[in-house]
Amino acid sequence: MEKRVYNFAPGPAVLPLSVIEEVQRDLLCLPGAGASIMEISHRSKTFDRIITGAEANIRKLLGVPDNYRVLFMQGGAFYQFAMVALNLLRGSGKPADYIVTGTWSGKAIKEAKTQGEAKPAWDGKPDNFIRFPKQEELKLSADPAYVYMCSNETIQGVQYQIEPETGAAPLICDSSSDIFCRPVPVEKFGLIFACAQKNAGPSGVTLVIVRDDLLERSSGDLPSLLNYKIVAENKSLLNTPPTFAVYVVKLVTDWLLNEIGGLKKMAEINNRKAKMLYDAIDESEGFYQGHAAKDCRSTMNVPFRMPSEDLQAAFLEQAAARDLCNLQGHRSVGGCRASIYNAMPVEGVELLAQFMREFCKKNK
Amino acid sequence: MEKRVYNFAPGPAVLPLSVIEEVQRDLLCLPGAGASIMEISHRSKTFDRIITGAEANIRKLLGVPDNYRVLFMQGGAFYQFAMVALNLLRGSGKPADYIVTGTWSGKAIKEAKTQGEAKPAWDGKPDNFIRFPKQEELKLSADPAYVYMCSNETIQGVQYQIEPETGAAPLICDSSSDIFCRPVPVEKFGLIFACAQKNAGPSGVTLVIVRDDLLERSSGDLPSLLNYKIVAENKSLLNTPPTFAVYVVKLVTDWLLNEIGGLKKMAEINNRKAKMLYDAIDESEGFYQGHAAKDCRSTMNVPFRMPSEDLQAAFLEQAAARDLCNLQGHRSVGGCRASIYNAMPVEGVELLAQFMREFCKKNK
Repeated sequence: MEKRVYNFAPGPAVLPLSVIEEVQRDLLCLPGAGASIMEISHRSKTFDRIITGAEANIRKLLGVPDNYRVLFMQGGAFYQFAMVALNLLRGSGKPADYIVTGTWSGKAIKEAKTQGEAKPAWDGKPDNFIRFPKQEELKLSADPAYVYMCSNETIQGVQYQIEPETGAAPLICDSSSDIFCRPVPVEKFGLIFACAQKNAGPSGVTLVIVRDDLLERSSGDLPSLLNYKIVAENKSLLNTPPTFAVYVVKLVTDWLLNEIGGLKKMAEINNRKAKMLYDAIDESEGFYQGHAAKDCRSTMNVPFRMPSEDLQAAFLEQAAARDLCNLQGHRSVGGCRASIYNAMPVEGVELLAQFMREFCKKNK
Repeated sequence: MEKRVYNFAPGPAVLPLSVIEEVQRDLLCLPGAGASIMEISHRSKTFDRIITGAEANIRKLLGVPDNYRVLFMQGGAFYQFAMVALNLLRGSGKPADYIVTGTWSGKAIKEAKTQGEAKPAWDGKPDNFIRFPKQEELKLSADPAYVYMCSNETIQGVQYQIEPETGAAPLICDSSSDIFCRPVPVEKFGLIFACAQKNAGPSGVTLVIVRDDLLERSSGDLPSLLNYKIVAENKSLLNTPPTFAVYVVKLVTDWLLNEIGGLKKMAEINNRKAKMLYDAIDESEGFYQGHAAKDCRSTMNVPFRMPSEDLQAAFLEQAAARDLCNLQGHRSVGGCRASIYNAMPVEGVELLAQFMREFCKKNK
């Protein structure tokens, strides 16, 4: 077999090795099924155990209250940008307030504008998207349909620390790049969604956690697959779900519960990993320049720059020679970025931090 | 390893064994990538080769003309029911004509009605959905936005034999359960879509083949992921595609080209397999009752009934004891159904036909 590298890709991203090994072991024949997980009916008892098991794991990990549904959908975060606006903004007669903290919340408000009045409650662009706003900076509408936020901006490496207060308006959260990275008070949100391909599984499945009362806002004139209420009533089985991807989510959440020991433990590990890289940045006395303000730094994505493009190119090349791979920044902003999701092993981050110190010493 | 059975499931369905073996072999580390196919970026060179390779295979297999785009989407056929109506019916000022030949075209027209005037050009329900209509039976509108058909009704086992003539109106085709089963004159269609989980790969990816001029009908007020034009302009990479599922589609289409030898060869094999089962039905002198009219019989799905529920239960039990599995009919119609997609080995069908004859002899 070829050698696996330390994969700092922003998503699709590293998965727990033990999960991939289990998928590989059972790929020709899932125990008891007589066929591959890719070949079995979504209405079989075997798959029912998988999808209900995945839901139970998610409920346990996040402490999801009983009045919330857990849905498995397709289409990624982009599909949820549309779903949120189609179900909760369109025809509501109210504006929706978007907290714009980076690329992904920026895309979300753009999509929502096709369906109604979507207004920035705060816009981080003048500050170059380096932080999450303070409560007193938010300009919320009197009675918004909802308030929207992105809990972790993958490209800018900005992560919120305290949930904004939104009064009676439901708080909608894109948690694509930091779901399961730490405990979350789900009851403070009306709806949380997350594509799987950072912390939950492969691309192709999206998790949606939605409070029951919001389902009543879905209009009957929406096609079924765009209607949260209908998707929820059909327990995510209106049509064939992405069975393989749901299966991997089940295994990843098993890993979080049984090998890691839950989200509190996961958060401790993530904080430790992130600190290693931020320490290397801070100790470099300006050689490495982190993007985010210190109190908004993401534990998942660590974007940073060096004094020149040439140095960055040398950094990426030398890192790759040590099997520290996929550290280039997003094509829209350049620079470097280390994505250190749940499944990135501590030793990978240690090796990267060590390399960063060495590279700084040699090239400063 | 546990034993693999002959899997007659209607979808997700049997995949070529050699494909699953290759996925399994490379699952921990895709050659040259240093990571699993589940872990690599959709914008990496490795994945670019996979998705462009899959598209090239599809173009070669079906002879897709240059003025058609091949898109990889999520959401299954149900999502296309909505997309077709949102992009081509809504706001067109025209009706859309639906040829209703079974459960799936029935669901499609229901979804379309949320977006505009969707009319049955023919309705097979009074005949219990046993056939595809003749050209002269179609009641087409004077200037419809499009004419819609389902090329193979998975539940009723009805497959069309000659494309309906629709004049200037584009013909839209749900080919979910028979894509790649035989050559198709793509140029007679405006748009063909197919979820992958029958003949093309695992669930979670949907193939769309659409003629360029139809893209111009998509309205700018649609969210991006619901807009064919935007999806096409972004070459299916507006957001993260279901990378693993696209990879398997690449391998399945490799198999069709290189191991089978193309769709003409595939059709010969499929005709041979289907004939084995229909012969067993016809020779049973009414013990087995096929659902579809003889000239509309599907080569993919063979639904049939026996004189009593008890006999059907015994049939399913005894078949399963011989590793002939998942032969129960759809929960909405009951009975039995053998789905014999491309990847079902000839020997599986031989064994089933042999068992059908034996069971008939014993129980008639």
